[in-house]
Amino acid sequence: MSAPLRAAYLGPEGTFTHQAALEWIALRGKGDDDATASVVEPLATVPHVHDAVAARACDVGVVAIESSVEGYVVPSLDALIGSPDVVAVDEVVLDVSFDAFVRPDHGELREVSAHPHGLAQCARFVADSGLTPVPASSNAAACRDAGPHTIALGPAVCGDLYGLETRARAVEDLRGGRTRFLVLARRGEAGAYLDAARTTGAAAWRAMVAVTPVVTGPGVLARITAAFAGRRVNMSSLITRPLKAQEGKYVFVVTLDQAPWEPGARDVLAELLAAGDSLKTLGVFPAPDRDLGGTLDPDHVPIGSVSGDAAAADLAAGLLW
Amino acid sequence: MSAPLRAAYLGPEGTFTHQAALEWIALRGKGDDDATASVVEPLATVPHVHDAVAARACDVGVVAIESSVEGYVVPSLDALIGSPDVVAVDEVVLDVSFDAFVRPDHGELREVSAHPHGLAQCARFVADSGLTPVPASSNAAACRDAGPHTIALGPAVCGDLYGLETRARAVEDLRGGRTRFLVLARRGEAGAYLDAARTTGAAAWRAMVAVTPVVTGPGVLARITAAFAGRRVNMSSLITRPLKAQEGKYVFVVTLDQAPWEPGARDVLAELLAAGDSLKTLGVFPAPDRDLGGTLDPDHVPIGSVSGDAAAADLAAGLLW
Repeated sequence: MSAPLRAAYLGPEGTFTHQAALEWIALRGKGDDDATASVVEPLATVPHVHDAVAARACDVGVVAIESSVEGYVVPSLDALIGSPDVVAVDEVVLDVSFDAFVRPDHGELREVSAHPHGLAQCARFVADSGLTPVPASSNAAACRDAGPHTIALGPAVCGDLYGLETRARAVEDLRGGRTRFLVLARRGEAGAYLDAARTTGAAAWRAMVAVTPVVTGPGVLARITAAFAGRRVNMSSLITRPLKAQEGKYVFVVTLDQAPWEPGARDVLAELLAAGDSLKTLGVFPAPDRDLGGTLDPDHVPIGSVSGDAAAADLAAGLLW
Repeated sequence: MSAPLRAAYLGPEGTFTHQAALEWIALRGKGDDDATASVVEPLATVPHVHDAVAARACDVGVVAIESSVEGYVVPSLDALIGSPDVVAVDEVVLDVSFDAFVRPDHGELREVSAHPHGLAQCARFVADSGLTPVPASSNAAACRDAGPHTIALGPAVCGDLYGLETRARAVEDLRGGRTRFLVLARRGEAGAYLDAARTTGAAAWRAMVAVTPVVTGPGVLARITAAFAGRRVNMSSLITRPLKAQEGKYVFVVTLDQAPWEPGARDVLAELLAAGDSLKTLGVFPAPDRDLGGTLDPDHVPIGSVSGDAAAADLAAGLLW
């Protein structure tokens, strides 16, 4: 783990994943004089990133794992489930936010350019600008190819990358879209990364664990979740993924609000092992902002939901029971 | 529910969703003389399909909900969570399988055409054919535009749709990819569809339920899963979805191996209501092939997983505990 750090990421350049890689290096590089010498390299696919980490062609890899809009990035998740020697040691969460860039030598502005999705996500800015929207093949391409009459929209990373001036920040219509990225390392070096996080203040942890029940059938998910409930270990996420080449068989990917070495989590894992399950820790990362709960604004309950004080007819309509 | 049935689906024509809509009508139309008079209409987006169902522009809508490769189709899931008056009343599961089509009047064959993803999924067939691969904008477009020298690859539905001959079936490299589609109806008419399924033999059911805890925080998922475990109601799938506009708040989408009106499920739902959760049944469908369990082939456990008989060092490496 001596600097300079070599990071691979799922490219191309100028994407939110690129930005996540740079942000993680800046954070990890605190107190590390050579952080600015770090190398980031775009790779073509998630398996390429895994292979580069496993083969020591780089120290860490960065891939998107979950979007607040699209949910889990399943190819990233499946690669981690299927990887023999790569594990996640940190995460980066980015707002999906667009900046508006111009060339330093720009003239009269006539066009606003981005990928069609980017133009759509910034529709209000585009309309207010009064400029002509011009679709590009990607946001990065819009920024790279921006002419003197163009405002280009893209991730903040595109400013430095293409020598542009930031004319406005966060010009998307709706705030709050976020994407979570994983930082991948070789399994044998995970302890060193986690120790480094601990020395810089990490105290609370989250872990992703793959639980593969060998005996399956009705009741298996209930048995697993009961094990967590019995030890009072909170699961902040649980999803089921079908096992490749095994019809009707599943692996459960659980996110815990503990590290695997903390007493409660360790007891649960030991209990699942004793029950015959196969287990694999997919990642452990510092949890800077553990959710301490709260009360939901009733206005945000999905429309059509019913609660316990509803009339019998409304319960029947909502529940179909 | 009198025939002819009007079905909307997430288009365009010639997709697996189109095929799912036709297969559902063929099944639902058993004993229904007017089934052949049914109308299927492609719509541009999932919200358009929901709106068409809600506004009675059609009887049912068909959208993809889950792929064995990509996981949940989150826009479809979020639309269902957010819909005031549309609910799923059936499901269709299709193998993601490509047929090879030629024009009835074809001459010497020189090219094989499909969307680039389709060409990739049928790479062995393409290589064995010795023909030149030609990318198309979609599989349906490849079939629609097939010339006399072209083999076009696409879903089976494209044969009838574009008047082509089927030269070979299931030419994809890897079998076993499957996509699940939901059949959507107006909530007020769900009972009639489910009654119809019951009279044609449905006896086992599955249900999707959205559980929105009003009081959130550590332990909430454990509490909900414990309720199911306590009543021995099996959950075959559970995923967490962030609630729009409520940072850190989640809705849990649970798939049960029971209908909401069956005693165990009804007791669980009543228990959750009593605990203050808001609930909404997103769908109820016949379960023709309930998974009765079995034992997993140990060769298919994800590589790097450990089991209870592993040595301490292997447990440490696999679990990071």
